[in-house]
Amino acid sequence: MGGDEMAKESLSEKLTKTLATLVTEQLCPNDKLPSERALSEQYHMSRNTVRAALNQLFLQGLIYRSPGKGTFVAEPLDDRADVAAAFSFTQQMGAMKRNPESKVVGLKQVPASPMVADHLRLNHGAAVYVLDRIRMADHRPMMAERSYLPAAVLPNLSKALLKDTPLYDLLEHHYGIHIATVDETFFADLMSAEYAQLLDVPPNSACLKIRRTAFTSAGNIIEYTMSAARADQFVYHVQHANH
Amino acid sequence: MGGDEMAKESLSEKLTKTLATLVTEQLCPNDKLPSERALSEQYHMSRNTVRAALNQLFLQGLIYRSPGKGTFVAEPLDDRADVAAAFSFTQQMGAMKRNPESKVVGLKQVPASPMVADHLRLNHGAAVYVLDRIRMADHRPMMAERSYLPAAVLPNLSKALLKDTPLYDLLEHHYGIHIATVDETFFADLMSAEYAQLLDVPPNSACLKIRRTAFTSAGNIIEYTMSAARADQFVYHVQHANH
Repeated sequence: MGGDEMAKESLSEKLTKTLATLVTEQLCPNDKLPSERALSEQYHMSRNTVRAALNQLFLQGLIYRSPGKGTFVAEPLDDRADVAAAFSFTQQMGAMKRNPESKVVGLKQVPASPMVADHLRLNHGAAVYVLDRIRMADHRPMMAERSYLPAAVLPNLSKALLKDTPLYDLLEHHYGIHIATVDETFFADLMSAEYAQLLDVPPNSACLKIRRTAFTSAGNIIEYTMSAARADQFVYHVQHANH
Repeated sequence: MGGDEMAKESLSEKLTKTLATLVTEQLCPNDKLPSERALSEQYHMSRNTVRAALNQLFLQGLIYRSPGKGTFVAEPLDDRADVAAAFSFTQQMGAMKRNPESKVVGLKQVPASPMVADHLRLNHGAAVYVLDRIRMADHRPMMAERSYLPAAVLPNLSKALLKDTPLYDLLEHHYGIHIATVDETFFADLMSAEYAQLLDVPPNSACLKIRRTAFTSAGNIIEYTMSAARADQFVYHVQHANH
């Protein structure tokens, strides 16, 4: 292909532009798009052309699918919370001028299972807290989190303490434990039935899962957390250099 | 809750351990799990208890769901490619001792749409290459990528050139363009029908989407890429410090 040669704009590219305008200027987030068949009839284009245009919108993050329900307008990426932008959910929501809230739905002490003990570098069976929280922003459920914390260094952790103070503030100011670094792994999955209900999204919605291990200045592990975040509410943004 | 008090292990926690052992020691990735009803009968536990145990396995990333098909054993997280570990897919697969391959499924020159022009900081309508690739590892399709590249600075880019040399090597050695930094945004979504077929996964599978903008040493944008990666093959791992 020569540098001067310019391919004519394909039909699917024209349709992509038309639909992108429809989605970004005329419809609202979570509005339903017409079916492939309806779009094919409306624009007098083949189903394959329609599918290619919708795939382009999908790649751009402009639309999302809900299995068995159809195709919908996505929240703009710029409006989603950047999981990497702030150190804690509380800070992050504050930066976005949204009102953060944590609902503690469970707190108990249990003997660490082998999986949890390995993650926290404790002996199997050592006492750990299991903390279940729903994180909200402006009263909207955003993510479900299950955290494991070593009980030995956090005496008398209670729902009452957690009700009024964010966990990291509690660690810093009540227990004198400073978190130095955090290790995170992200992956995509489908929301479980249990969490879909708690987070007010359809079952089998897209879900951003986050595993988080927090280290103290002394290099001890103080927290192991598994989160399931609504895909329509979160992105992860990073910048890295070529080494 | 006092520090000495240790809650008894709940039924669902016992079942979680039993099922975690089943999943990690007796079954293989992509094996199907029995239904909730079957598990409930087999272990003489309520459907709610079974659901809580499965949710815990879901949070651990041990299982995944396929809408309308059931629950399956996930690939271990440690076996998935870390999108953040290396600078390019080629490097990353090399580090994992897997054989990387890029199938160029499309290359053409088009006038930049407003969206593409904005991302590449070009005038609307400026000539850009659209490059569609399927990235493979050991002959298995891993991710679909659509890249936009400014045509003016990459004269005579061709499928033949791309067939033998990874894109970044071509930029560096053939065009003398060094990529200095890369800006990435990740989010979760469901695989589109078109990509599900190309990547050999069921439609509505979980998908990790990646938007990538590559900057040259001079601060110009040389690449804008949108990828859809199989969720069962990729994680994103980062470590960050508390500021």
